[in-house]
Amino acid sequence: MPLYKAPQRDMQFVLHELLQTEQNYQKLSKYQDIVSRELVDQYLEAAADFCENELAPINQNGDQEGCHLDQGIVTTPKGFKEAYDKYVELGFTSLTADPEHGGQGLPTLLRIAISEMLCGSNWAWAMYPGLSHGAMRTIEHHGTEQQKQVFLSKLIRGVWTGTMCLTESHAGSDLGLIRTKAELNSDGSYAITGEKIFISAGEHDLSENIIHIVLARLPDAPTGTKGISLFIVPKFNVDTQGNVQDRNNVLCSAIEHKMGIHGNATCVLNFDAAKGYLIGPENRGLNCMFTFMNTARIGTAVQGLAASEISFQGALAYAKDRLAMRSLTGAKCPDKNADPIIVHPAVRAMLMTQKAFSEGGRALAYFLAQHVDIVETSDDPEQRKMSDELLAFLTPIAKAFLTESGNESAKHGVQVFGGHGFIVEHGMEQIVRDARISTLYEGTTEIQSLDLLARKVLKSEGKLLKNMTDLIEQFVSEQQSNEVLKPYLERLAELKQQWLTLTKTIAEKAKQNPEEIGAASVDYLYFSSYVVFAYLWARMAQVAHEKLDEGTQEQKFYQAKLSTAKFFFQKLLHRTQAHAASIASGAESVMELDEDAFSF
Amino acid sequence: MPLYKAPQRDMQFVLHELLQTEQNYQKLSKYQDIVSRELVDQYLEAAADFCENELAPINQNGDQEGCHLDQGIVTTPKGFKEAYDKYVELGFTSLTADPEHGGQGLPTLLRIAISEMLCGSNWAWAMYPGLSHGAMRTIEHHGTEQQKQVFLSKLIRGVWTGTMCLTESHAGSDLGLIRTKAELNSDGSYAITGEKIFISAGEHDLSENIIHIVLARLPDAPTGTKGISLFIVPKFNVDTQGNVQDRNNVLCSAIEHKMGIHGNATCVLNFDAAKGYLIGPENRGLNCMFTFMNTARIGTAVQGLAASEISFQGALAYAKDRLAMRSLTGAKCPDKNADPIIVHPAVRAMLMTQKAFSEGGRALAYFLAQHVDIVETSDDPEQRKMSDELLAFLTPIAKAFLTESGNESAKHGVQVFGGHGFIVEHGMEQIVRDARISTLYEGTTEIQSLDLLARKVLKSEGKLLKNMTDLIEQFVSEQQSNEVLKPYLERLAELKQQWLTLTKTIAEKAKQNPEEIGAASVDYLYFSSYVVFAYLWARMAQVAHEKLDEGTQEQKFYQAKLSTAKFFFQKLLHRTQAHAASIASGAESVMELDEDAFSF
Repeated sequence: MPLYKAPQRDMQFVLHELLQTEQNYQKLSKYQDIVSRELVDQYLEAAADFCENELAPINQNGDQEGCHLDQGIVTTPKGFKEAYDKYVELGFTSLTADPEHGGQGLPTLLRIAISEMLCGSNWAWAMYPGLSHGAMRTIEHHGTEQQKQVFLSKLIRGVWTGTMCLTESHAGSDLGLIRTKAELNSDGSYAITGEKIFISAGEHDLSENIIHIVLARLPDAPTGTKGISLFIVPKFNVDTQGNVQDRNNVLCSAIEHKMGIHGNATCVLNFDAAKGYLIGPENRGLNCMFTFMNTARIGTAVQGLAASEISFQGALAYAKDRLAMRSLTGAKCPDKNADPIIVHPAVRAMLMTQKAFSEGGRALAYFLAQHVDIVETSDDPEQRKMSDELLAFLTPIAKAFLTESGNESAKHGVQVFGGHGFIVEHGMEQIVRDARISTLYEGTTEIQSLDLLARKVLKSEGKLLKNMTDLIEQFVSEQQSNEVLKPYLERLAELKQQWLTLTKTIAEKAKQNPEEIGAASVDYLYFSSYVVFAYLWARMAQVAHEKLDEGTQEQKFYQAKLSTAKFFFQKLLHRTQAHAASIASGAESVMELDEDAFSF
Repeated sequence: MPLYKAPQRDMQFVLHELLQTEQNYQKLSKYQDIVSRELVDQYLEAAADFCENELAPINQNGDQEGCHLDQGIVTTPKGFKEAYDKYVELGFTSLTADPEHGGQGLPTLLRIAISEMLCGSNWAWAMYPGLSHGAMRTIEHHGTEQQKQVFLSKLIRGVWTGTMCLTESHAGSDLGLIRTKAELNSDGSYAITGEKIFISAGEHDLSENIIHIVLARLPDAPTGTKGISLFIVPKFNVDTQGNVQDRNNVLCSAIEHKMGIHGNATCVLNFDAAKGYLIGPENRGLNCMFTFMNTARIGTAVQGLAASEISFQGALAYAKDRLAMRSLTGAKCPDKNADPIIVHPAVRAMLMTQKAFSEGGRALAYFLAQHVDIVETSDDPEQRKMSDELLAFLTPIAKAFLTESGNESAKHGVQVFGGHGFIVEHGMEQIVRDARISTLYEGTTEIQSLDLLARKVLKSEGKLLKNMTDLIEQFVSEQQSNEVLKPYLERLAELKQQWLTLTKTIAEKAKQNPEEIGAASVDYLYFSSYVVFAYLWARMAQVAHEKLDEGTQEQKFYQAKLSTAKFFFQKLLHRTQAHAASIASGAESVMELDEDAFSF
């Protein structure tokens, strides 16, 4: 198993040097007296210690042991419960929660950074508190005062955990199809009846109670997405003081056998007139969910970046250690009978790709998290609006691209190991299996691409795209006298223009044929993602240059940033052109084949 | 589990219409009285029946049950032994073997086509006869008459099976490092001592005896690849009549826990002064192996194409069945509460990609197999030389690209299923796990890329590339008046020119810095592969046009070929440009980072 080492130095680079967190959070009244560089570093240090020493060691056995279901009771793998207790004890469950209910009131940015370490060291485990966070946020945002009193503080303390119950067997991407019913009881509660599938952390032994957030339909609700309401359904009923009472009628009838994330229980939950409580307005359940869809998706994006990071760490260690053949420019280790494989360009290219995806992904995820904090706490409505729009635009990009590039990195990680990558004990194939879920859940890559192109770009008539291209333009013009950045700035300016032109072309074509949107969207998402990465890599290069010019003890660190930026621009960014050409070719070749002519 | 249906119609298209097998094999004296369209179709039919009804049903349980090792004895999953007995009974083990020793003397082309079905229906199972074939070929080509008498006929009859024992734990890609020793016994046999790993089918319960072909070093052999010899080491010793005697000292001490191909036993074999017989000349073991490296690699390429095919079949069935959301151009199934997802362009694009890879891969693999037959049996030395060179050039392309595109197809297969793709019972994730080995064994993609660029293209000073570009040129000029092919021909002519120019550029740069080769090779391999596919897709489009012009009952079939060709040219072929630009950027960004600056 690759040894997980939290990349604290690079996290600090992004948080302090690229995003200037301390300085920026001074402008947010909620955080100005709280968020300092020292505080951030202390939390990172504590979380790194927990992840490296508690979570990483139980990652591989979690995969191999998996979860057990016996008569509705799920047992998690050895060590998961103890690690969860420790996590609660360290106070991580309450990080960003409202201080009024016992939370620490810290920014999402910090939670996201910590979450990267949790996912990198033990993806399956990290999903338990991850889902809990979703339930917490829902109640915090949409719950009545009474609901908060009863449910929130125990979730925040971590004594209870939560889930999000959306999917049904016939309704995944298309939630409008869900059938679970909610009927009013005489006491004002609801009887929830139906079957939910793919409920991560739906049943387990980590906490005293589980609070399910459930999408269901009221009896006379409109069909489709506008007839869905949201309910709180606890595993154990609770009294008004929040004391656990009898078992509610929600039962885990099966856990899925999955490709990966074996340590997380993916449950089929049967609700049989289970007692539930309406949260938020009737028939507005999906809207309530969407209020924090962005943060949930950034959470998934972080899983992707964590996969890049850990597969990079594993591959790098192996590439320095494994001996095979000689360097093309002559023996590098003549005292050994072969050179370490890191001397070979093809191996290096895989490592550099992983590094570029991991560090670029970190920059993007943290950048978004910072805008979440601005949206939620800034006093400046203009700034809030700007950040909100930027988030709306960048979230599908981050979700889809960080998970896809995480999958690509995980593939390279196996490849660097050669045949050994296929062997379970090395742990590299587990990363592939775990990471595979990330392009599927929280909206597939294809769903994200439609969200980006149709809902965000075209529906706003390009406004949301323009916010982003303005940022690029601004950066390019600010740095125009910066000679060392010149090749990057020129490329960025070209790509920005190409992005606008491509978008206009699609919009024109879509007027004639709406299929043009769906035929272009995935390529458009990739094109956009590489350009966003290019912007962030150019900004990182600029920071690195600045530090080197100022004089630094960490020359190698900043030089590595420059080399990685160069690699990204010279080796990966050209992929944009394949996507652009594919977009330009339009929908015809995608749509013309008859459904019954795909196979004979 | 996706139901496997042998794609017989498409196989016939490639064999009869694209490659005109009957007509071409009339020119080969060995086959002229044997190979007819009827014969080929009969064999395909019989193999399809076996694969669909015997192998496919035990594929999923083979994955879930895996192999068991108990005190050196390996038990294969339920049904594997019975299927093997049936396979032997049907006579498939002797297909291409020498009639002098009981073989049927049929062409490699037919074996490769049948092998596609075996791999598509049950990859893990198919490896047992696959490895046997390797051992058979080795003995057929390099064995003494006595060795053939003793070992060959039972291998051909399938009573015994074989393995290839190359890898050691420290020596995979770099076989020069192997340490297994061979010391002369007084009776002229050798005592083989060492540990081999990753030995597929190294121990199992399918056959009476297992014949290992083992790479080992004689006591005073030169170091490196020039000091390796080849030995026959049977699991049970045999007398000169080929009767099984006592157990030889070769023991399976462990089987690997792997990401996939669980039904195949991947063994650690310990040779403890095991009795072996030198095969071929001393110290020339690697050369002997290389004589059929091409066919072995085409065999792996076929596994990749089989993965494309089966993942396509699974995804297609699901996409027609699963309902979610409405078509962008309005409801296609207004009577249902949503449309089948095949109406969505992003889903279609994944299916079309799988289809283009699968059918294009089939064309390439069979094209190569035909050249294997020419090399081995043509009376015309010019033709043999041409085919041999073409094979040398195209084999690394086929091996690397068909396995990489097989992996990509398998990924799409999961993606089309959404969250359900991650669930074991649907069988789509098994394809991903099984297929993952194919870019690793028989030489990784990176090794193939160096073989292509350094050994084949640059070492021949472009000669081997020119053979291929000449074929393209010839096709383009033959078809120049064919109006319907015009866009394809123009694109092919451009790409051919770009290929030559790129190659020249790399060769020039490599004179200054040999690292340029390694930094370019993987991109070069992909660029080359897409161009080769473009050539084959254009040829397939030409055949389809011809059939449509002639008038045919199968209009839909040929129209589908045209649509898939169009899709390939319009959506996938642009990837060449990303690779070309990456090559053009050179080695600097790959090589400049210090080994100790990859991580902090």
